[in-house]
Amino acid sequence: MTSAPSTPTKSSPPTTPYQELVVMLKQTNLLGSSSAILSWDQETMMPSQGLAFRAEQLAQLARFQHVHATDPKLGDLLGECESDSQLMSDPLSSAAVNVREARHKYDRATKLPVELVEELAKLSSLARHEWAEARRDSDFKRFLPWFEKTVELKQQEAKCFGWADDGEPWDALAEDYEPGCTAADVEKVFTPLREKLHKLIMQLTNSSTKPSGKFNQHKLPIDQQEKFVRYVSEQFGFDYTRGRLDRSTHPFCSGTHCNDVRLTTRFSENFVIDALGSTLHESGHGIYEQGLLYEHIGTPMGHAISLGIHESQSRMWENQVGRCLAFWKWCHPKLTDFFGSAVDGFTLEEVFGASNIVTPDYIRVEADEATYNMHIMIRFDLERGLLSGDLKPADVPGVWNAKYKDYLGIDIPDDRRGCLQDIHWSMGSMGYFPTYTLGNLYAAQLYDKAQADIPDLHDQFEAGEFGALKTWLNKNIHSHGQRYRAADLCEHVTGKALSADPLMQHLQGKLRPLYGI
Amino acid sequence: MTSAPSTPTKSSPPTTPYQELVVMLKQTNLLGSSSAILSWDQETMMPSQGLAFRAEQLAQLARFQHVHATDPKLGDLLGECESDSQLMSDPLSSAAVNVREARHKYDRATKLPVELVEELAKLSSLARHEWAEARRDSDFKRFLPWFEKTVELKQQEAKCFGWADDGEPWDALAEDYEPGCTAADVEKVFTPLREKLHKLIMQLTNSSTKPSGKFNQHKLPIDQQEKFVRYVSEQFGFDYTRGRLDRSTHPFCSGTHCNDVRLTTRFSENFVIDALGSTLHESGHGIYEQGLLYEHIGTPMGHAISLGIHESQSRMWENQVGRCLAFWKWCHPKLTDFFGSAVDGFTLEEVFGASNIVTPDYIRVEADEATYNMHIMIRFDLERGLLSGDLKPADVPGVWNAKYKDYLGIDIPDDRRGCLQDIHWSMGSMGYFPTYTLGNLYAAQLYDKAQADIPDLHDQFEAGEFGALKTWLNKNIHSHGQRYRAADLCEHVTGKALSADPLMQHLQGKLRPLYGI
Repeated sequence: MTSAPSTPTKSSPPTTPYQELVVMLKQTNLLGSSSAILSWDQETMMPSQGLAFRAEQLAQLARFQHVHATDPKLGDLLGECESDSQLMSDPLSSAAVNVREARHKYDRATKLPVELVEELAKLSSLARHEWAEARRDSDFKRFLPWFEKTVELKQQEAKCFGWADDGEPWDALAEDYEPGCTAADVEKVFTPLREKLHKLIMQLTNSSTKPSGKFNQHKLPIDQQEKFVRYVSEQFGFDYTRGRLDRSTHPFCSGTHCNDVRLTTRFSENFVIDALGSTLHESGHGIYEQGLLYEHIGTPMGHAISLGIHESQSRMWENQVGRCLAFWKWCHPKLTDFFGSAVDGFTLEEVFGASNIVTPDYIRVEADEATYNMHIMIRFDLERGLLSGDLKPADVPGVWNAKYKDYLGIDIPDDRRGCLQDIHWSMGSMGYFPTYTLGNLYAAQLYDKAQADIPDLHDQFEAGEFGALKTWLNKNIHSHGQRYRAADLCEHVTGKALSADPLMQHLQGKLRPLYGI
Repeated sequence: MTSAPSTPTKSSPPTTPYQELVVMLKQTNLLGSSSAILSWDQETMMPSQGLAFRAEQLAQLARFQHVHATDPKLGDLLGECESDSQLMSDPLSSAAVNVREARHKYDRATKLPVELVEELAKLSSLARHEWAEARRDSDFKRFLPWFEKTVELKQQEAKCFGWADDGEPWDALAEDYEPGCTAADVEKVFTPLREKLHKLIMQLTNSSTKPSGKFNQHKLPIDQQEKFVRYVSEQFGFDYTRGRLDRSTHPFCSGTHCNDVRLTTRFSENFVIDALGSTLHESGHGIYEQGLLYEHIGTPMGHAISLGIHESQSRMWENQVGRCLAFWKWCHPKLTDFFGSAVDGFTLEEVFGASNIVTPDYIRVEADEATYNMHIMIRFDLERGLLSGDLKPADVPGVWNAKYKDYLGIDIPDDRRGCLQDIHWSMGSMGYFPTYTLGNLYAAQLYDKAQADIPDLHDQFEAGEFGALKTWLNKNIHSHGQRYRAADLCEHVTGKALSADPLMQHLQGKLRPLYGI
């Protein structure tokens, strides 16, 4: 029984500049959230012929959003807030954080002309569709003109933002995904990681002992797979009264706000581990989104810090949890619950091993924990070249294939399994890929700390209890919103700057025994 | 292979007032179409806890839409167009029609304060949710405060619009659904229809011969039902590359534009005829929406005329086609294709009869072709009273139940099957219901003319060919957009003013033989 409705649109009008600022930020966010639903719908529900009109809808909302985000009134309010010394006295207070991050976004947004914003939104919608068709037919030429146009507009965008004297165009775009992180910063971490990882991958590849991959060729009905992965994600803590799981070509998590978080995944009949991994990955993103505080919706305090930290959440649930032995001790009997006699004969060791096979291969989103990072480093190299102009879009397939030979020792059979595999560039997301590997690094370092704080974590997993880890993440990561920048949060929580060591230790500690090393 | 993309947002700027007007109309329509997707999503996809935020999203878009629709610039452009005698020389030209109908909408929109528009949008979203919960629990008291608030705001809205001296508040709201149609007009048609229909219903109810209802108690798996109804709707001509079919509590068709039309339907295990009827009904709406011309999207020439004409399309495919013997001669063997031996023993005559049983009963959307109109007349009476203030919302259950006793001779067991059954009032749709019976009247009259123009129509149905009727409707109804007002279109196409005779002849001609009269 609910109480009688008060007039629902009336709330007391904002009286201070800060309150006015919050109202304006929430209005802009509201527009973005409507766009997010339309984009989600485009990927999951929209009939194929709805595309052209959808592009118009998204462009209109993007235009409104840009107008709101660059309203000079917003600049005035920010100035007033910044000069209010009491409001700003504690730099980690919600108000000070909201002002700081809103300023950062406002300054960036006002550097972009509205025409470019709208053009990018429209192009992204159309190019995404062309990419999907081109990928299906492995037809890079079909995508090329859209890719060229995208790179051209992204170069323009980078110029509008600008970059440091010792920087490069890539930095200007990466700022949207990983604030404060430059290509040089990334390279500094990636170079030592690449060497150590290369050594480990070679050791594993050359080992005569290998886990059996039989389970990964085993057909299981997709309807049952769907029920299974949904069940596991629910046990991990994804709340289905505040979210959904659907299917799309490229799995994603679209969080419009903490009470409406939409995951997608994908299935193939003979690879339930892939469906599980994708689902747990997106659930990790979803648990982060659901862990943001409702009271802060629409302000920086209610939003994720960076894609690197976001990815640390998805990777942790996918890899640190979903591929560890303790998890499989709990989950292995569940296979029988969901698939019945179809999984007879697959032992715990076999399934655990099958979920941890390391094989240099073509497809990033199917890659194992170890080789995955090599896929990222290749894309990072290419993005930098594309944005600086050193690499032409038409040359991408050739360079792509050469790098795969060099980094992973494999020959790419076609562009569908090569440079057309990812949706990102078609959506105009450039400067984005490295956040995946930053996420792996953050995940490993944060997880070490969670284990130190919760010593019986793996015993809990064996008993099917995942709530303590979720609560730890809610408290230490999610509830902060954008209070800290990524590197600061890492240091605040773990007491140390980001390092490649936890990730390498995690990989070596799990994989070497499985490969008899 | 597509050609290289030109910069996609650039189109030549509008140069005449009329071109400017069209651009403005399309922008407003674009906002409405984004709202429509969010509303559809709310009914079909949104997680339950997303509701409060969705109300904010819809209110924001409604506010933008209202600002666009009432922009004084629009009024100026309309004035300029109206004084361009060359542009307006042919009153049935696209330009003259667009100006005429845009003026009608503009004048109405400028009568509403933006606060009321937003308040209604927000209330509608929340009240709809409360209605769904109240209906589930048959708890009218839970819905009552939301209902009272809705009626109060709708009365305010009616006052803003105003009505003729000899009219009433109902007229002011009905204008949105059936332009030019007053309560007095409706009463003039409904009074004789009620008498004739009452007589027919009594004859059928008292007849000792009745079609068997056995098929309507026969359980069939819902997955197979879904495939079956989807197949039939596709054969009728609903294009699934330009639309979808999902499930919702109350079936609806949400057309954002001709290339993205979304139908919903509902299923119960032992009533495939209901699922088929609902689906064909919504498909009829969908075929109308898909038949509007893409070139006119966003302008009156690309929009449906009135709900009465819209309903004539849904009713025609549902009843004139989907419940006629020729249709069942084709469809009866399909039952075996979809349900196998589960439908063994049900003869053509039995299934045809089962789809044409007349039984005074509680639920409007499950009602047969004959009694359906009585449900409408009851709602019409109540709406008039609610809006004039003669009837208090709290008294609706009592009056509802008394009218059902009076018109249909039945006792309403609870509010779930009584006054809580329909979504309309919870959404603020008042002045809407009579368009359903106007639709039945238009359907019968238009169908007579289609049969005259296509003499072998029923032979075609028997062969599973429905394209000729669809083409006839595309040409005579859909492609006109809002060129004619409803009553004028009827006269233009059939050569006669709307009359109750075709509907009564259709009902008598089919039902009397089935009931041995």
